[in-house]
Amino acid sequence: MAVYTEISDDELTAFVAEYAIGDVVGCKGIAEGVENSNFLLQTTQGSFILTLYERRVNPADLPFFVGLMEHLSRSGVRCPVPVKDRQGRDLKTLCGKPAAIVSFLQGMWPRRIAAWHCDALGRAQAEMHLASMSFDMRRDNALSVAGWRELFSRISVSAVEEIEIGLHENLSHELEELANAWPKLSPEAELPAGVIHADLFPDNVFFLDNKFSGLIDFYFACTDFLAYDVAICLNAWCFEPGGDFNVTKANRLLSSYEAVRPLSQAERNALPLLCRGAAMRFLLTRLYDWVNTPPGAMVKPKDPREYLHKLNFHRGVDTIAAYGLS
Amino acid sequence: MAVYTEISDDELTAFVAEYAIGDVVGCKGIAEGVENSNFLLQTTQGSFILTLYERRVNPADLPFFVGLMEHLSRSGVRCPVPVKDRQGRDLKTLCGKPAAIVSFLQGMWPRRIAAWHCDALGRAQAEMHLASMSFDMRRDNALSVAGWRELFSRISVSAVEEIEIGLHENLSHELEELANAWPKLSPEAELPAGVIHADLFPDNVFFLDNKFSGLIDFYFACTDFLAYDVAICLNAWCFEPGGDFNVTKANRLLSSYEAVRPLSQAERNALPLLCRGAAMRFLLTRLYDWVNTPPGAMVKPKDPREYLHKLNFHRGVDTIAAYGLS
Repeated sequence: MAVYTEISDDELTAFVAEYAIGDVVGCKGIAEGVENSNFLLQTTQGSFILTLYERRVNPADLPFFVGLMEHLSRSGVRCPVPVKDRQGRDLKTLCGKPAAIVSFLQGMWPRRIAAWHCDALGRAQAEMHLASMSFDMRRDNALSVAGWRELFSRISVSAVEEIEIGLHENLSHELEELANAWPKLSPEAELPAGVIHADLFPDNVFFLDNKFSGLIDFYFACTDFLAYDVAICLNAWCFEPGGDFNVTKANRLLSSYEAVRPLSQAERNALPLLCRGAAMRFLLTRLYDWVNTPPGAMVKPKDPREYLHKLNFHRGVDTIAAYGLS
Repeated sequence: MAVYTEISDDELTAFVAEYAIGDVVGCKGIAEGVENSNFLLQTTQGSFILTLYERRVNPADLPFFVGLMEHLSRSGVRCPVPVKDRQGRDLKTLCGKPAAIVSFLQGMWPRRIAAWHCDALGRAQAEMHLASMSFDMRRDNALSVAGWRELFSRISVSAVEEIEIGLHENLSHELEELANAWPKLSPEAELPAGVIHADLFPDNVFFLDNKFSGLIDFYFACTDFLAYDVAICLNAWCFEPGGDFNVTKANRLLSSYEAVRPLSQAERNALPLLCRGAAMRFLLTRLYDWVNTPPGAMVKPKDPREYLHKLNFHRGVDTIAAYGLS
């Protein structure tokens, strides 16, 4: 839930006049997303999303994000398409902040995940990965192993112990194990790398009429192992609300992914480790937000215990069979 | 900024299917408004606003609000039009809460008020007042004199004194004066009464292409003196951000109002008193929110001092000449 910047009607009218998208007929702040200010902009020509990039986004990363959306949509991946102004610019300034207009993507994200959603997700993710291979920009993943350790060091021991006694020691140990075992991201790496979405949770995947309609929110996208993106989805889509791992959903996610882009043996072998890493990444950001959100704030931080549970699940996994693949 | 209820895609699809408005293609929570959950609903037939009524709205009042919008739009007042479902119902239930769909009103509210906005506002308000005369439902104004005293009694003396030393005594005295001087709302009353909007601030008045496009948010509407509604607008539209009263704007507001519905001599005489009352009403709700909003909440309460300043201004006004009318 977020709209941090208020745009005046005069500023907006002048801004939109720089584009060939018609005249403004409405502009409403959207109560979703926590990083940027998003507006549903309606003009005489249709609907668009206007985003103002707030403090948490590094302006130096914006050409990567916007370029990626352009590249993917040109490659046939359904996602918001950056709209260029009359001078061909897609990254501009509004209210003193970086701003962009993208096309409006029809659809809604699923609140209750069914197995068929995982079919569609697997296919869409694999297609995105294939398309991203020919994208020539790169961006480091700030939230990989080194980033996890840095983030963990900024959370007080006592705050972690409040979640569960012994948890600080437990996570320190797990972080060390992950750091030792984590594959190297290099051109010679055994695991294929490319641009991943890195935040492909249900609220970033739209469906319309029971069919996949597109991906949104590429603001965590980065260069990393493709199978790590799959591991994020196994965490985000295949656990039931009560905590049970749904192996049917995992199987359908992986099978449909493989129907487009088969996983190598090295990727299959690495998947339990990558799932542990993905669980750790979201556990740590949730822990951090949990500790740093003032009481009474309207944005309720998500309970970190959910990802502690998922981490523990993956620690008990030996082979990809646990994820429903033979 | 508010979306309190999350609607699942399945629930929404089933709900919208009860209407003849096409299929859902998108639904985004709107970050404006503090009383209800509002969604911009897009279907294959166009845009709509879906509102879920939250705790602060009394369900018993909803037929009045929805009936008023229907009545006004039928009478030619531009405002959202309640949409009926296939069975002719406009008030329904979604996610266990009262819910309604209304038409999408094009336009944006003005962030910087120019005098011409006040022309348009005065005309629109007078037209609304004339149209409301033939609306046969009534609703008491819970935020009139008795409501002010009740609200004031719920704010601690120390909290009021923190705003300004001596303010509690000062406001107690002013409330007593207002209670004694306030006209009686009865069929024999000297001041014409009818259904007023009661919250006609700039964010509830839309403009498009430099022309008035409509009124929104009738959820404070009630039966009260028509001139009290005008007094609310003098407070909300005619002070500059620095606190100066802009007599040009007031003159244009009142003149354009009178071009549609002339004020009686009794209304003109009462206007300074009604303006004091209107300033008191918003001062008290802001004081209350100021005291009761937890620190760190994402909704920043508005500074009550703004309305204390306005109240003091009106206390110094003797005749309507101060508002630019002779």
